[in-house]
Amino acid sequence: MSITKAGKCFLVGAGPGDIGLVTLRGKELVEQADVIVYDALANPEILGWTRPDAETIFAGKRPGEKMFSQDQINALLVEKARLGKTVVRLKGGDPFVFGRGGEEAEALVAAGIGFEVVPGITSAIAAPAYAGIPVTHRAQNSHVTFFTGHEDPAKSESALNFDALAKLGGTQVMLMGMDKLAAITGEMLAHGARRNLPVALIRLGTSGQQRTVVGTLENITERATATGLEAPAVAIFGDVVELRKNLNWFETRPLFGKRIVVTRARKQAGKLSFQLREIGADVIELPTIRIEPPSDLREFAELVQDAHSYDWIVFTSVNGVDAFFEMFFKLYDDAREIGGAKIAAIGPATAQRVKEFHLHVDLQPAEFVAERVIKEFEKAGGVENLRILIARAEKARVRRFDI
Amino acid sequence: MSITKAGKCFLVGAGPGDIGLVTLRGKELVEQADVIVYDALANPEILGWTRPDAETIFAGKRPGEKMFSQDQINALLVEKARLGKTVVRLKGGDPFVFGRGGEEAEALVAAGIGFEVVPGITSAIAAPAYAGIPVTHRAQNSHVTFFTGHEDPAKSESALNFDALAKLGGTQVMLMGMDKLAAITGEMLAHGARRNLPVALIRLGTSGQQRTVVGTLENITERATATGLEAPAVAIFGDVVELRKNLNWFETRPLFGKRIVVTRARKQAGKLSFQLREIGADVIELPTIRIEPPSDLREFAELVQDAHSYDWIVFTSVNGVDAFFEMFFKLYDDAREIGGAKIAAIGPATAQRVKEFHLHVDLQPAEFVAERVIKEFEKAGGVENLRILIARAEKARVRRFDI
Repeated sequence: MSITKAGKCFLVGAGPGDIGLVTLRGKELVEQADVIVYDALANPEILGWTRPDAETIFAGKRPGEKMFSQDQINALLVEKARLGKTVVRLKGGDPFVFGRGGEEAEALVAAGIGFEVVPGITSAIAAPAYAGIPVTHRAQNSHVTFFTGHEDPAKSESALNFDALAKLGGTQVMLMGMDKLAAITGEMLAHGARRNLPVALIRLGTSGQQRTVVGTLENITERATATGLEAPAVAIFGDVVELRKNLNWFETRPLFGKRIVVTRARKQAGKLSFQLREIGADVIELPTIRIEPPSDLREFAELVQDAHSYDWIVFTSVNGVDAFFEMFFKLYDDAREIGGAKIAAIGPATAQRVKEFHLHVDLQPAEFVAERVIKEFEKAGGVENLRILIARAEKARVRRFDI
Repeated sequence: MSITKAGKCFLVGAGPGDIGLVTLRGKELVEQADVIVYDALANPEILGWTRPDAETIFAGKRPGEKMFSQDQINALLVEKARLGKTVVRLKGGDPFVFGRGGEEAEALVAAGIGFEVVPGITSAIAAPAYAGIPVTHRAQNSHVTFFTGHEDPAKSESALNFDALAKLGGTQVMLMGMDKLAAITGEMLAHGARRNLPVALIRLGTSGQQRTVVGTLENITERATATGLEAPAVAIFGDVVELRKNLNWFETRPLFGKRIVVTRARKQAGKLSFQLREIGADVIELPTIRIEPPSDLREFAELVQDAHSYDWIVFTSVNGVDAFFEMFFKLYDDAREIGGAKIAAIGPATAQRVKEFHLHVDLQPAEFVAERVIKEFEKAGGVENLRILIARAEKARVRRFDI
């Protein structure tokens, strides 16, 4: 293989989970990379930004899969960059906040490979923020400490000094180490931290699956067990946790926890995704623009095949109707296979085309604006646990829309 | 004024300075806002993303300007949101890391206004990263503490406990408080921190003007004075500072500290800006897309009028040549007014058109790839203190390019 240019490795923070918290530079690099070496990401949707011909290598930890050691990851980055590739090392949160980015940078320098660091939003700050907890508040603390529950036993400094930590006070945020929560809160109590010190555990922070459990230093372990809250979670210790009572903005939004799949790329997602996110929906954008016809078709077919399991099927254009039924009648030879799904059609032409397939249009909103459509659904029987399939105009995409 | 919808306020972190470190969500909100209330930002270019009709209100501190108190800012956010506006409160770094975002959120809740928090990259992490200093390194520390040098004297907790801080060790990062550096390092030493503890001061971190001064706890104040390093700066204390010797990637790039003005909007900036940034240039993109024809024309005219003061004028297309000279000959009636500026033209057609204006083409690179053009400039007499004017094809934009 000929080496035509010097490769370079970018250590890129992918942020905490909410895809909107990725940086502009991070996105730009993911879009341009020849090779992406990624960890288990809170939001794998980011990988949808990669070039169709990019090589993507999973280097994280996942049960039952072969694991790369840190040395192997370092060697991989060097090897790919030496081939002249633009390598993006994509890591959750920030690469330099307990992310082992420092070790990777050292390995690159040792091998003479150029590198660049692109910081990411750390879940140590963002998960509390999305739980309504500012890590600092002027009236309460002038410092915040982040620590990891997973220390390297071989490191030169002494382990976490719980005595000093208790005396320092302020806000303390633990990343990783939920499995050691009992031991860590025990150490804090043993070193004089207040028994009633407020503590919050935030699982999958900034995502639509975010869950928060609040307690005190004394009872938080018990509450975590009682509520079944598991890793990955961030723990925040300090009086700022009390602010959540007032500031819990994210988990209280109307569509919080609702997953909506939008099968087109971000740049085209436009107003609908924005509005859905505004009211709390966890919008998942499938990168269909990159999916080759066969697998795209398969996904499309699966959604259509599954149509009967939805409460509503929403058609937004004549082409959407045609594409849907073309596939539907390849899969089924009877219109009744559509089951009990109700049908909404946006605009009279779309409704007319549905009727030509001899199906009843239950709802005909004048335009497709998420909030308005949802209001119509409410009138027509509530939005609790609704499953909605949206067949839209452009390129016969179908969206699944679970409310 | 009629109130047509409920307003909402978004507390948005603008990041540390590098515009590439703004989040996707942050950019989206700035683009959509009716009202932007902003602080003194490390990178005011962000304001170029606002809608032409958006109201922008400066609420930061700037010498000689009227200052808003925090209460006044809170009242302003409430007032604008009550008018049904989408209000973006744009703050440097992260709104909840010493950003007083908590107080603003409380005021909004008290007034019944909906709010959302959009975390930003904090300079406490990003400035060290851009100085080649990971705030954590697995071999060295399992915790990092951020503190502010500017405490609220009225807060309920005791002030920073330097005794506990010294015992805790790890990495410590100070935001704000450069004016108290002597007092703070004195406290640290008095409480037993090592005299030779490595310290770095990073001024305007992540920007092209970033400057880093390294020393020890004992001599850093003296070094700051000796080198004239002033606020705003981040101070980082800990052994991780030593890693900079190996990992100083940002300040060593070929175009580091060079400012380049690109007069088109980010989405169109494409490969040139990317390549310039790759090699360290501080690319400033003027939001010409938003500027109305008259003021756009004025800016264009000013750059053309100033052409004689440049070392090089670079034409990248026939249209660029035409647009430049159409304006030039409106301003001047003699081609000699172009002064001693040398002329580069990309490609033979562009060169030919320049020659038709009876001017000599000094350099004719085959294509416009920044690194290659710069190499040509080097051959033709060096790149020290070069001022380059680039007249590009599309829409008769002219770029100023000061090397």
